[in-house]
Amino acid sequence: MKLSLQQRAYLAGFLDADGSIYVQAKKNQTYKFGYQIAPYIVFYQSSKSNLFQEVYKLIGFGHVRMRKDGVTEYIIGKKEDILNFIDIISPYLILKKKQIMILKQILKQKELVKNEEDFETILQLCNSFQDLNYSKKRKIRTLCP
Amino acid sequence: MKLSLQQRAYLAGFLDADGSIYVQAKKNQTYKFGYQIAPYIVFYQSSKSNLFQEVYKLIGFGHVRMRKDGVTEYIIGKKEDILNFIDIISPYLILKKKQIMILKQILKQKELVKNEEDFETILQLCNSFQDLNYSKKRKIRTLCP
Repeated sequence: MKLSLQQRAYLAGFLDADGSIYVQAKKNQTYKFGYQIAPYIVFYQSSKSNLFQEVYKLIGFGHVRMRKDGVTEYIIGKKEDILNFIDIISPYLILKKKQIMILKQILKQKELVKNEEDFETILQLCNSFQDLNYSKKRKIRTLCP
Repeated sequence: MKLSLQQRAYLAGFLDADGSIYVQAKKNQTYKFGYQIAPYIVFYQSSKSNLFQEVYKLIGFGHVRMRKDGVTEYIIGKKEDILNFIDIISPYLILKKKQIMILKQILKQKELVKNEEDFETILQLCNSFQDLNYSKKRKIRTLCP
């Protein structure tokens, strides 16, 4: 997909205004270190609108989920799609630059994990994320609580 | 203020994702035709964030209002600022192109109003607006109900 610089900047503005960037560290004993690391970039719009059709035409990947509360989410969750999207928009981001850099770092670190210590680094990165997103129901996750 | 094409496109994306464009026709008998026509472009963010500082650095006009419910509004309400902003972003808008064109038309028509019929045209434009914004508490306004 070839996007012009203006289209990339447009998507950066869209993400800064409306998007969420986060990584869930879900407890899951079927994973080697007891956690599943699930990264997301999500946009939100009223389900009454069909705005995401236009955004999808630009982006060309991701999927849509209609919530019961009338909000539709546009979710980019696959690792390669996220990395692709980060490359497209990161030069133009203003507000969520930090979040996107940490997300990139987490995805990179994930490939390099060899032991619990490495994995602990990822969990700490996930925590620093939640500080930036000023979540109320923040959970500090660690391998050695 | 000089903005690059990418900065303009970024602001268009921001507006498409997060912004509201609307015109209030408020009953007010001190006005010649019984209504005050008040146009707005508004952005919304959590009051916990200071994201609007960055947006203000780019735009250079507008004002901020902190609501009691934890939402901060960034409001562009002055006619000349609105027209200025429309010029900056309209080439890059995707989702809210129609709304912005109607807003521009309303501001233009307002200058040309000579009689009740002209004013009725403006009220009809305000109504068409609300259809686009799929407001639930939609009020059809007219001079001759």
